[in-house]
Amino acid sequence: MPRENNPILDQIGKHASVRAYRPDPVPAEDIDAIVAAGQRTSSSSNLQTYAVIAVTEAATRNTLSHLCGDQDQIRQAPLFLAWCADLSRLDRATVLRGHPHAHNTVESFLIAAVDTAITGQTAALAAESLGYGICYIGSLRNNPAEVITLLGLPRLMFPLFGMTVGVPAHPHRLRPRLPLRAVLHHERYSRAAEDAALAEYDRAMIATGIYEGRQVAVPGKPGVMEDYGWTEHSARRVSRPTRLGLRAVLRDQGFDLE
Amino acid sequence: MPRENNPILDQIGKHASVRAYRPDPVPAEDIDAIVAAGQRTSSSSNLQTYAVIAVTEAATRNTLSHLCGDQDQIRQAPLFLAWCADLSRLDRATVLRGHPHAHNTVESFLIAAVDTAITGQTAALAAESLGYGICYIGSLRNNPAEVITLLGLPRLMFPLFGMTVGVPAHPHRLRPRLPLRAVLHHERYSRAAEDAALAEYDRAMIATGIYEGRQVAVPGKPGVMEDYGWTEHSARRVSRPTRLGLRAVLRDQGFDLE
Repeated sequence: MPRENNPILDQIGKHASVRAYRPDPVPAEDIDAIVAAGQRTSSSSNLQTYAVIAVTEAATRNTLSHLCGDQDQIRQAPLFLAWCADLSRLDRATVLRGHPHAHNTVESFLIAAVDTAITGQTAALAAESLGYGICYIGSLRNNPAEVITLLGLPRLMFPLFGMTVGVPAHPHRLRPRLPLRAVLHHERYSRAAEDAALAEYDRAMIATGIYEGRQVAVPGKPGVMEDYGWTEHSARRVSRPTRLGLRAVLRDQGFDLE
Repeated sequence: MPRENNPILDQIGKHASVRAYRPDPVPAEDIDAIVAAGQRTSSSSNLQTYAVIAVTEAATRNTLSHLCGDQDQIRQAPLFLAWCADLSRLDRATVLRGHPHAHNTVESFLIAAVDTAITGQTAALAAESLGYGICYIGSLRNNPAEVITLLGLPRLMFPLFGMTVGVPAHPHRLRPRLPLRAVLHHERYSRAAEDAALAEYDRAMIATGIYEGRQVAVPGKPGVMEDYGWTEHSARRVSRPTRLGLRAVLRDQGFDLE
């Protein structure tokens, strides 16, 4: 199939995160279709180390909203998918078959995290193909112990990310991405293009108006101001550690990351 | 769009991992289209914490094959994509902007791992829409230090998984997945359906012939044999720890997982 008039590339190219939804419920057969589509995704050694909790009840979504940074979209969206790394099913398999279970390594957690993420992304595209909008909810990791209790997750399950799903309330604007040369390297890694690509991306993001014309001091030049862009915004974002309780919760759930 | 005659659901539903390729190269414009499609994927706080190294040179693919469990498909496929969690770009952003960088947490690594995985999966679907087959290569984590040297990855980059890409040498059979009720839970987690779902899946996988009629002792009943199925196969697979060196390599790369 050519790159032009390719409905899959078109669908992928239209993605924007949706944070405002109409109340229309997602029918059960669509939930099934979305998750079943996710299931077709590759899986490490076909272990399928993920599970998803589909939450539609308003009371649970209200609590989830509270636990996930008080985001209105979680109260508003008719469906919340909690995508979980799941080694508990394999743990049951080892019990049923009389084998030990080596679940203590970084590797076993990574297998589950990657399986969960790629399954969730396929499901996201499936949902979008059915006319829904979606938004990843990383703040499902804000209060993981409370989420685990709320959703009744057993040992060896971990809520990796959430996803709101519903009919978009209005069209959402696409955000520009980093220039391709910033993320795609040929044969070996090279940082030769990086600084120019960041500057180019700053200009593209500033042009969207997302930073509302903010100014920021030029590093090392007191009193000299310049436009606030993605590089400054993102550098600030990662300047402080977040979600410091994760390691302990992972350990409590049986993921020792050794 | 309805679930019937939906080209996205059709494409997703056709996925099977491809492990035998024709030698036809993947043109540069297709590599660009595949990675650019991946870039449209959601990204945590739009940080875009991934990068991909596109390897086409035969010598590098030979070495990668050697490092990744001596898989022929890596020598055969014209394109190998090494998908990397990348906090090095943000590290550069913090240097340019004069901010500290909190890269020591499980959370910062998880952001990068999930970004990388979901981007890679969108790229995989894009590649499949263009007529290519793909296979995830988890064994890129077999010898991560050597892969890091080979691909010239700097500190705060980690090779999360590989992906072979090329024109399939022959049609590949779809593998059945776990019954939907094993992975999809409603409102709260429940394990009520689990054992029956595992038994059903064992029957489905045995019916494909993948286990070639193997027999295995029934646990707790010496001398009594039964069909070897997915539950036994997967329980054995996770009974021993694998890739135990990962934690040290992650630490060497600046991912302390605190």
